[in-house]
Amino acid sequence: MNTSSTGADIGVYGLGTMGSALALNFADKGFDVAVSNREPEWIKAFLTEAGPLSERLTAEAELADFVAAIARPRSILFMIPSGAPMDAMIKAIRPHLDEGDTIIDGGNADFNATRRRSADFEGTGLHYVGMGVSGGEEGARHGPSMMVGGTDHSWTQLRPMVEAIAAKFEGDACVAHLGPDGAGHFVKTVHNGIEYADMQMIAEVYGMLRDGGGQDAGQIGALFERWQDGPLSSYLIEVSAAALQSTDSKTGKPMVDVILDQAGQKGTGRWTVIEALKMGQSANTIEAAVGARGWSAEKDARECAAPLLEAQALDASLPAEDDLEMALLAGRILAHAQGFRILASASEEFDWSLDYARISEIWRAGCIIRSALLDDLSDAFRKELPADHLILAPAMRARLRESIPALRRVVSAGVSMGVAMPALSGALAWYDSMRRARGTANLIQAQRDFFGNHGFARVDDAVGTDHHGDWKPPA
Amino acid sequence: MNTSSTGADIGVYGLGTMGSALALNFADKGFDVAVSNREPEWIKAFLTEAGPLSERLTAEAELADFVAAIARPRSILFMIPSGAPMDAMIKAIRPHLDEGDTIIDGGNADFNATRRRSADFEGTGLHYVGMGVSGGEEGARHGPSMMVGGTDHSWTQLRPMVEAIAAKFEGDACVAHLGPDGAGHFVKTVHNGIEYADMQMIAEVYGMLRDGGGQDAGQIGALFERWQDGPLSSYLIEVSAAALQSTDSKTGKPMVDVILDQAGQKGTGRWTVIEALKMGQSANTIEAAVGARGWSAEKDARECAAPLLEAQALDASLPAEDDLEMALLAGRILAHAQGFRILASASEEFDWSLDYARISEIWRAGCIIRSALLDDLSDAFRKELPADHLILAPAMRARLRESIPALRRVVSAGVSMGVAMPALSGALAWYDSMRRARGTANLIQAQRDFFGNHGFARVDDAVGTDHHGDWKPPA
Repeated sequence: MNTSSTGADIGVYGLGTMGSALALNFADKGFDVAVSNREPEWIKAFLTEAGPLSERLTAEAELADFVAAIARPRSILFMIPSGAPMDAMIKAIRPHLDEGDTIIDGGNADFNATRRRSADFEGTGLHYVGMGVSGGEEGARHGPSMMVGGTDHSWTQLRPMVEAIAAKFEGDACVAHLGPDGAGHFVKTVHNGIEYADMQMIAEVYGMLRDGGGQDAGQIGALFERWQDGPLSSYLIEVSAAALQSTDSKTGKPMVDVILDQAGQKGTGRWTVIEALKMGQSANTIEAAVGARGWSAEKDARECAAPLLEAQALDASLPAEDDLEMALLAGRILAHAQGFRILASASEEFDWSLDYARISEIWRAGCIIRSALLDDLSDAFRKELPADHLILAPAMRARLRESIPALRRVVSAGVSMGVAMPALSGALAWYDSMRRARGTANLIQAQRDFFGNHGFARVDDAVGTDHHGDWKPPA
Repeated sequence: MNTSSTGADIGVYGLGTMGSALALNFADKGFDVAVSNREPEWIKAFLTEAGPLSERLTAEAELADFVAAIARPRSILFMIPSGAPMDAMIKAIRPHLDEGDTIIDGGNADFNATRRRSADFEGTGLHYVGMGVSGGEEGARHGPSMMVGGTDHSWTQLRPMVEAIAAKFEGDACVAHLGPDGAGHFVKTVHNGIEYADMQMIAEVYGMLRDGGGQDAGQIGALFERWQDGPLSSYLIEVSAAALQSTDSKTGKPMVDVILDQAGQKGTGRWTVIEALKMGQSANTIEAAVGARGWSAEKDARECAAPLLEAQALDASLPAEDDLEMALLAGRILAHAQGFRILASASEEFDWSLDYARISEIWRAGCIIRSALLDDLSDAFRKELPADHLILAPAMRARLRESIPALRRVVSAGVSMGVAMPALSGALAWYDSMRRARGTANLIQAQRDFFGNHGFARVDDAVGTDHHGDWKPPA
């Protein structure tokens, strides 16, 4: 057991893309970093990559030596695959830890696992932090957005280091202690869910321009690049614009045209939708994005279907560029509103007291969904927010007022032309459901009582009082 | 321990709406039935209700006496709330059982729980059956559709009794042994998911006629009643037609107009969506229906939103009645196709070898989703089925060819007029996604590789080979 209070400021275990980048980021900001990795050969490669920064690095192949190289109370960040590998690592490292030490899971963990692991650490004197890290490799190296869940003890210990490496938005570090146990990983999961939805909606507009408008990748990329000067300005539009204008060196074709149309997924999008459903919510824009990735994987079935299922398109013309831009803005607002609605449900369910304005703020730089919109969101959350719904904030209502007609025109064109827009049409269906005081669930309740004797509430009696219908027999 | 081979043919525990109806159905068909219930006063009420059938009934308040009253090997059907109450009952009854006995959970259980309970029974000489029962109270009393999961031993024992009480479609009993353990409950779960989607799509058409067309409940009910003579003929249209034409005796208003527009849900719809997501699928029509029920529950938020969020509708007119009818038919076909797609995934995942034609057959009568369409489905499954997708069956393609243009017109009208159609628009988005050989997930893959170094497959190289893009830096 090491009782030394000297040693590295932080340990980073796992030197893959994200772990390496974070370790170098810490070193860059003047922290001494102990590093380790299951495969020792990765350590050597990493030290070579580190160059002059390696003087701030202590590399150890053995777990005991790695732990001993870190000053107490220790902060040890794991950047390894989530799930079973993390449980195995916790088991392996635990005998080497001392009171007050914190281990941090910086991967995309299921927040349920983080809650379980945090509970296991309670009362042991050891601390467990679930930290969402967004920004990809570039963000991790030069400034990610980080969402921290854990104890105040751990936050005090981590804060100076994570604030130093975080992305800055007008000087404000994009990292916050959002709550205990799974709060950080849950917020990161929903962040990723919103990312899925935004990527899908961009892909839907690309599909409209390509399949409905016959435009090539370069043209579409140039249009997206122009949108960077307007309200859609965001990292994902920037990335899409650059990607669409990139050329494959092997074929000379646009890069996107040689990429197979089968998207992968790693779990966070799906988790967002599942957790939303468990809480009685539906984030249908995110579900549409997760679903579209699933359908994309059925490439063989789609190729078989293409000649068999006719479009039978109706007359319609390609929407104006301005309409596509505003439709995407409306979709983005609605997807964010759904994401924050899920956060509110979880905050209530798990008693996290999430600070939505602060979450918006730490998403303004460093992370994948950073955009001009997020700056407005933090304002919206600090001001009047009717029914706690982001779409009802005055600033968001003003944006929607100018963008909803465009969303209607674009979705209608897609529906008529046969260009699939599951996320954009889902966003609009949610908007039209939420703005109607009297919906159509009264018929659903009638059906349920008719065939299943389920009962219903009446408009002229207290909610909770069970009534049954005077049903006429079927004709 | 009772070693008698005489006694009741079956035991029914739980005398709520469904349990009572099933017990009377068994008695009606000449079986001797032992009945019991946690609250003994329910037993007395039940015997009164039973009238002359009570001579076939043996009522026992004590569990041991109830079990002893049943002939060995026993079949004991539980119609009690799923979840913890079922686990408690299993624990309580198990000491009273003998080798070869089967206990049957006839409730809407989570199939994961049924799998766990079946595994617990393995090798004990006792048998566990998860049986989905559809048809509501009326079906249970006079002929339900039943989906059985369990051992061959149990099926041999149960078969004559469940075939006797089942609904008949042209003489064919609507019950089948679909597979081991959770197969029956899973198929019932997906049945309910399809039911959710169908109910929601009917409610969306009702919403279009009410909010877009200004029609009253009676007019809409009369239209639905006329649809019973066409391809939409089904129990749910029949129920909706009758419900819409029913009058509230208290106010003299249409029944549906005094029902609060907040729909409840009990789990099966949500489970369908969650299980689909876990298997990488998306049943977006069912998700839309589950989501719409969730949104309906936010009544206060919707009332707050109504004056704040403007419709900003575009010019559009109410679709023709024929278009609404055909749109609903297309939606119904697509929702069924999604349901069967989930069944196929689960059958593969759990090695159930589900018989889709047989499932279609036992849904033709007795159950809530029985419809003219189901007769065509069993045919479709017995014939050529390209890519194992129901929408690619020749008969379904013919139906879709004549109904997709109507679906486009109806969804487009809803989108323009501001009438929410999450399920119908979702169904169309799925159709348009699946019929496109070259989708838009190539852009998603480009984005993921650009910011996260995730890699992608190329169209000109084997799937599984990882490539990275020659990305131009962002502008």
